[in-house]
Amino acid sequence: MRNYLLVLLLLTAGYRATAQAPGPLTARLDKVSLTFALGPDGRPGYAIAFGAKPVIKASRLGLSFADGKGFEGPLVVVGSETKDVDETWQPVWGEVKNIRNHYQQLTVHLRQPAAPGRLLDVVFRVFADGVGFRYEFPAQPNLAYFTVQDEHTEFNLPGNHKAFWIPGDYDSNEYTYTTSRVSEVNTTPIEAIQLKAAPNRVQTPLMLKADDGLYLNIHEAALVNYPAMFLNVDTKSFGLTSQLVPDATGTGAKAYLQAPEHTPWRTVVVSDNAPAMLASKLILNLNEPSKLTETTWIQPQKFVGVWWEMHVNRASWNYADVSNIKLADTDWKSLKDNGHHGANTANVKRYIDFAAKHNIQGVLVEGWNVGWEDWANNWKEEVFDFVTPYPDFDVSELQRYAASKNVKLIMHHETSSSVTNYERRQDAAYRFMKQYGYDAVKTGYVGRIIPRGEHHDGQWMVNHYNRTAQLTADNKIMVDMHEAVRPTGLHRTYPNWMASEAARGNEFNAWSSGNPPEHETILPFTRLMGGPMDYTPGIFQIQLESWNPTRNQGKQVHTTLAKQLALYVTLYSPLQMAADLPEAYEKHLDAFQFIEDVAVDWDDTRILAAEPGDHLTTVRKAKGKDEWYLGSITDENARKQPIKLNFLTPGQRYEATIYADGTGADWQKNPMAYRITRQVVTSKSALTLQLAPGGGAAVSFKPVKK
Amino acid sequence: MRNYLLVLLLLTAGYRATAQAPGPLTARLDKVSLTFALGPDGRPGYAIAFGAKPVIKASRLGLSFADGKGFEGPLVVVGSETKDVDETWQPVWGEVKNIRNHYQQLTVHLRQPAAPGRLLDVVFRVFADGVGFRYEFPAQPNLAYFTVQDEHTEFNLPGNHKAFWIPGDYDSNEYTYTTSRVSEVNTTPIEAIQLKAAPNRVQTPLMLKADDGLYLNIHEAALVNYPAMFLNVDTKSFGLTSQLVPDATGTGAKAYLQAPEHTPWRTVVVSDNAPAMLASKLILNLNEPSKLTETTWIQPQKFVGVWWEMHVNRASWNYADVSNIKLADTDWKSLKDNGHHGANTANVKRYIDFAAKHNIQGVLVEGWNVGWEDWANNWKEEVFDFVTPYPDFDVSELQRYAASKNVKLIMHHETSSSVTNYERRQDAAYRFMKQYGYDAVKTGYVGRIIPRGEHHDGQWMVNHYNRTAQLTADNKIMVDMHEAVRPTGLHRTYPNWMASEAARGNEFNAWSSGNPPEHETILPFTRLMGGPMDYTPGIFQIQLESWNPTRNQGKQVHTTLAKQLALYVTLYSPLQMAADLPEAYEKHLDAFQFIEDVAVDWDDTRILAAEPGDHLTTVRKAKGKDEWYLGSITDENARKQPIKLNFLTPGQRYEATIYADGTGADWQKNPMAYRITRQVVTSKSALTLQLAPGGGAAVSFKPVKK
Repeated sequence: MRNYLLVLLLLTAGYRATAQAPGPLTARLDKVSLTFALGPDGRPGYAIAFGAKPVIKASRLGLSFADGKGFEGPLVVVGSETKDVDETWQPVWGEVKNIRNHYQQLTVHLRQPAAPGRLLDVVFRVFADGVGFRYEFPAQPNLAYFTVQDEHTEFNLPGNHKAFWIPGDYDSNEYTYTTSRVSEVNTTPIEAIQLKAAPNRVQTPLMLKADDGLYLNIHEAALVNYPAMFLNVDTKSFGLTSQLVPDATGTGAKAYLQAPEHTPWRTVVVSDNAPAMLASKLILNLNEPSKLTETTWIQPQKFVGVWWEMHVNRASWNYADVSNIKLADTDWKSLKDNGHHGANTANVKRYIDFAAKHNIQGVLVEGWNVGWEDWANNWKEEVFDFVTPYPDFDVSELQRYAASKNVKLIMHHETSSSVTNYERRQDAAYRFMKQYGYDAVKTGYVGRIIPRGEHHDGQWMVNHYNRTAQLTADNKIMVDMHEAVRPTGLHRTYPNWMASEAARGNEFNAWSSGNPPEHETILPFTRLMGGPMDYTPGIFQIQLESWNPTRNQGKQVHTTLAKQLALYVTLYSPLQMAADLPEAYEKHLDAFQFIEDVAVDWDDTRILAAEPGDHLTTVRKAKGKDEWYLGSITDENARKQPIKLNFLTPGQRYEATIYADGTGADWQKNPMAYRITRQVVTSKSALTLQLAPGGGAAVSFKPVKK
Repeated sequence: MRNYLLVLLLLTAGYRATAQAPGPLTARLDKVSLTFALGPDGRPGYAIAFGAKPVIKASRLGLSFADGKGFEGPLVVVGSETKDVDETWQPVWGEVKNIRNHYQQLTVHLRQPAAPGRLLDVVFRVFADGVGFRYEFPAQPNLAYFTVQDEHTEFNLPGNHKAFWIPGDYDSNEYTYTTSRVSEVNTTPIEAIQLKAAPNRVQTPLMLKADDGLYLNIHEAALVNYPAMFLNVDTKSFGLTSQLVPDATGTGAKAYLQAPEHTPWRTVVVSDNAPAMLASKLILNLNEPSKLTETTWIQPQKFVGVWWEMHVNRASWNYADVSNIKLADTDWKSLKDNGHHGANTANVKRYIDFAAKHNIQGVLVEGWNVGWEDWANNWKEEVFDFVTPYPDFDVSELQRYAASKNVKLIMHHETSSSVTNYERRQDAAYRFMKQYGYDAVKTGYVGRIIPRGEHHDGQWMVNHYNRTAQLTADNKIMVDMHEAVRPTGLHRTYPNWMASEAARGNEFNAWSSGNPPEHETILPFTRLMGGPMDYTPGIFQIQLESWNPTRNQGKQVHTTLAKQLALYVTLYSPLQMAADLPEAYEKHLDAFQFIEDVAVDWDDTRILAAEPGDHLTTVRKAKGKDEWYLGSITDENARKQPIKLNFLTPGQRYEATIYADGTGADWQKNPMAYRITRQVVTSKSALTLQLAPGGGAAVSFKPVKK
C-alpha cells in the first residue's frame, strides 16, 4: 500500500511537472479508478486501482508506425470528456438473460506537438469490475493509411503475482497452463505446439492473483482488423508489455490500418474474489451489438459426432490408406477403402439414431470429404474442396435420414490452414451446405497458415475469422472455429459464432500427456474470459485402451466420469458436444441422462465457489424454465464442496439428481466410479458434494410437480 | 570455334574420368545438338551447339531443396532414352494455321548415390531452332512433398554477346530495354518500377546476339506451379544462372511441390538469322495442348475503350475527387461526381457507337466500378468488389444498348494486386459478368501483392494467374491480364487467355519518359517470345498536349502515326485495342481504315526482315481469307525497306493500300504526317517502304475482284 501511494504520488507529480499536460485525468466506478496522465517525457500513461489497492501501476501507452510518425510521444492533451453509461441488453444466447453495461467513459484527445500533428484518442471505460481502453485514430487530414509497427501498451503490475499462463505462440493456444510467480515466467522448457518464440512471452487472457487477494485478468475485447495481443513479461519489474503478432513481410509490420479506425479494447478485469471474475461481462460489453437482426435460426444445441472414434484410433478421417494424394488428379472411387473410415453412411446413421433417441440436436461428421489421406503437415495449398464426399458417404441419403429423425448434420471444414484455398471455396462450400440441409459448421485451422508467413493470430487471419463469421451469418450458418485465434467477445456481434476451440481441449487426453486435472479449473479464468469453448466434454470411457489396446496404451482422460458431466456446466458453451461414442454412452445411460437433460442456453448463472487451479462450482438456470444445473469440479485434490441451494425459487420443491464420484473414485485409479442419487430439495436446503481427486459432480434440479 | 572444341573436349574428358556416368548423352535435330554429361564432381551438365558453333557451353544443372536432400549432385545416371516426335497441330487462334512440333527427346534418369536415393529425370527436347529442357520428379517412395530452395541451371555463354535486357524486378516487366554487351549488364542506374534488386539480375525472355551471327533467346515455357525464372549474369565469365522468385516467408523458399511434378521448360531458341527467331514455335510446342474442348466462344477481336482518355488526363477512373474511402462503409450515391468520370453511361455509348460504326467488336470500360477514389499505393486489401457500378454507370442500360448495336462490352477487373480480395470475389464477379453479357475481362495487378510478401512473379501468383485462366474458361470468359507474370506460351493450353501486358506498353508514352522508338522492334524478340501482348497500339493524336495542355506538357507518343498502324501487324495479339479516343480517330478516318480492316487471327505469318533494336517487317495472311496485312517499323533511324510480294497468291491481283509516313515525317518533329496510296500488285511485284525516323508503314492487300 505504501509503495503504491508513493508511485501514484510520483506519477502525478511527474505529470504536473510538464507544461504539456493538465493534471491527471480520472474516471471511476465503484471501487475501480483510472488515472491518465502524460509523463515528463510527454508520453501518455495510465494507472488502475481497486479501492486503495493498486491494480496497474503507472504504465505507458503508445504506438509506433512504419512511417516513423506514430504516437510514441511526446504528445499533448488537447481535450478530454467523460460520460456515464448505464444500460441493459439481452444476448441472443448466453449465461444470463440480461446484461448490464455500466461504465464511466473518459476520452483523452492527444496530438503530436510536432508535424504532422496527428491526432490520437485514448478511450477508457471504467466498469465496476475493471477497465477497458483502446486507441482511436479519428478522421483527420494527415492520417489516412498507416501501418502499426508496434504497440507500446504496458501493464505494470505492483507485485510479483501468481500467474496462470501459456507460452506465447502466434499459432496455437493448445498448451497446459503453468502456474508460477510472474518472476518465474519462462517458456523455454515447454514443448512448442507450433512456433513458440521468446522465453518471456505469454498469451492472454492472462490470469493473475495478487498477494493482497486481488484477482486480475488481462485480455482484449473486440479483436477486429488487428493482430492479437501477446504480453512480454519483465520478470524483474513485473511489467507486461503488449506484443502484437507480426505479418508475413518480415519487416515487423503488425497492422495495416486506415483512419478512422481503432484498436481492440485492452481489458483489465479486477475483483477481490474469484467468482466475480467469472461473472464479469466487461469483455462482452466492450463488443459491438449484434450485426444480425433476424436470429431465430441460431440454435444453441448439443451434438454428438463421428470424431472421438478417430482420436481413440478406432476409425480414421481418411478413406484410403495411401499418401501423396493430389486433390484435382485423384479418382476417389478407385481408391481402396481402408475398412475403418469413420464417416461412412451406416456409421453416421448410428449417430443419428443415438441423437434422435436422446434428444441431441446435432451430429457432427468429420472426415466426410475427400483429401484426408495426406492432409496435415505438408504446407500444401490444395488439400480439401469442401464439396466432394468420400465414396462411402452418401450425402443425399444422410440428408433424408437425418431429416426423418429430426436431427441436423453438422458440417466440418478442416482447412489445414490453407486459408487462401478455403476462401476461394467458401461460397461454394456454403451453397453445398444449404443444399444438403446443414446449418452449422465446425471449421479447423490445423497446421501452418497459407498465405505462407502469416500467423493464426495475425491481422490477416483475424480478418479471415471475422469475415467467416459474417459470411456464415449471411448464409444463416452457425460456426464453431477450431484452432482460430482465442475469442474476445465477438459472439455478441456475431451471435452465429457459437464457439471456438483456441485452447487445449479434451482431445489432448486422447493422444498426448493429456490435460492435468487442474486444467478445467483454470480455463474459465483464462481462455473462457473471451467466449465459449468447444471443449468436447462427456467422455465416459475414461481408459482409452479399451478402444485400441496397442495404440492407446496407457492413455486415459485425466478426470473422473462424474467430472466430465460437471464440465457441461462449468465450461460454458451454447454448442456442447457429447463427445464419446454411442456405445460408450449405451453402457452408462443413467449417467448420460444428465447430458440429455442439461441446457445449453441460460437465464441465469451463479458462480458458487471458485479458485483458479483448484476448484469451481457453477450453477445455471435453463433458458425459460425453472430448471437448474450445477457443476462442481476439483483439481487433483479431493474436496468437499458445500452448496447452499438458495438460488432455487423459494417455495418450490425440486428433485435434485446428483451425479457424483463413486466410492473410491480417483481420476487415475478409479475414474469411472460414479453414483447417482436423488432427493427433493428447496431453496432452504443444502448439499455437500464429495469430489474425488480429479473428480466432480453434476446436479440437476427439476421442479417437482405439485 | 577452337575454344569451343577445347571446352567440349575437356567436358567429355571430365565426364569419362568418373566412374559414375557413361559417356556423354546426346540428342540432335538438324543443326542443333545437345550434350548431357555428369561432371567430375557428379553434377549434371549440358551444352548446346548450332552446327559447329557453340550456343551454351558446358553448364550446370541441379536443384537444392529446403530439406538439404536435393539434386545439387553428385548424381548417377541410371538410364536414358531418346525418342523422335514429328506432329502438327492447329491452334485455336494464332499467327499461323498449322504448327509443326518436331523434336528429338532425350530423357536422362538420375539418382542420388547416397540416401535417400531420390530420383530425378532431366528431359531435353531438341528442335531445329533450339532446345527445351526441364526437371522431372517422378513418383517415388522417398519423395512426396518438397520445397525447392534454389535452382542451379546455368546458361554459360561462349562469348560476350550483345544483350537486350530489362532489370530483374520480381514485380514488374515494365522497363525499357537496355542494349549492351553481357559484360556491361548493370541495372543499378535504372529507376525501379517496383522492387528491382540485384544489379546483375535480368529478366527473360533474354535476347542475345553473338558476334558470330547467332541469335539466341533464353526463356521458359509452361510456367505452372513454380516461380518465374530470372537470370543472374556473371559479367566476367558471361555465365547466366537461374534465379527463382522467392516466396513471402523470408526463408528463401522458392517452390512448394509434390511429386510427381516437374519444373517449367527452360528454353534456348537459336538461329542464324533474326527473322527465324520470331517464327519459332518452340515455346508454344513445349506447352500442353488446350485444356478446353469447346472453343467457339473464343473470339479474337479488336476493341476500343474508355481508357486512353484517363491516361491523357481528360477523364478519371474515379467518380468523386475524394480520398480515403472504405469500400464497405461508403454510400457511393452520396458522393459528388467530379464531372470528368470517364465511365459514365453517355460516354460509354459514344464508344459503343464508334465501335458499331467501324466494325470493332469490343468496348473496354475502365473505372466503371466503385473503389477508384484511393485504389493505388495503399497496400489495402478491400479496394474493389467488382460488382458495384458507380452511380453514373448504368450497367443494364449499357447491356441493352451494346446488344442493340451488336457490340460487346469488355469487363475490367483491376485488383490493385489485392489478390486475396479478388480470389474471394472472383466467382461473384464472373457471375455478374455473365448476367450482364460480358464475355471478356481485362484484369490488372497494379501495386504490391496481397498476400503481403508475395511477388507478382512468385509461385503463389503464378498459380493465381493459371487458376484465373481456368476459372474464366469455366465461365466461357476470355481474359487479358495486365501486370501479370510474362507469358510462357500457356495460351496454347488456355486459349481463352488471349493476351497479357507484362511489358512496357504504349501507355508509358502518355505519362513517363516514354518508350524509345526502338522499343517496339525489341519487344517481339523478348516479351512476345512468350505470347501475345496487349500493347494498346493505335494512338493517332501523337502530341498529348492537345488533350490537356497543363498536365501533358511535352508529352507525346514516341512514334509516327503510321508506325502506330504498323504495330497491329508487328506486335501480334488476338486482342488488339484501338487505343485512342473516338474523336482522335474521327479526324483521320482514312488512316483508321487500316485498323478497321486489319485481322486479328491469321493463317500465315512471314517475317520479311528483322533486327532487334533496329527494324521489323512482318506480313500476315488473315484467317480464312486471301487478305494480307503488312507492318514495317524502324527505330529512331529512317530506313528504306524493300519488300518482295512473293507471299501473295500467284496469279491473283491485289489492291495494296499503303499507309506510310508522310513527307518530312519524324517521330519527334512531325509525327502525324502520313500518306495513303493505293496500287494494284501481284506476287511478282515489289514495294519499297520509306520509313521515317521512329516511323513505320502498314499495307493491306485485298484481292481485286475479277
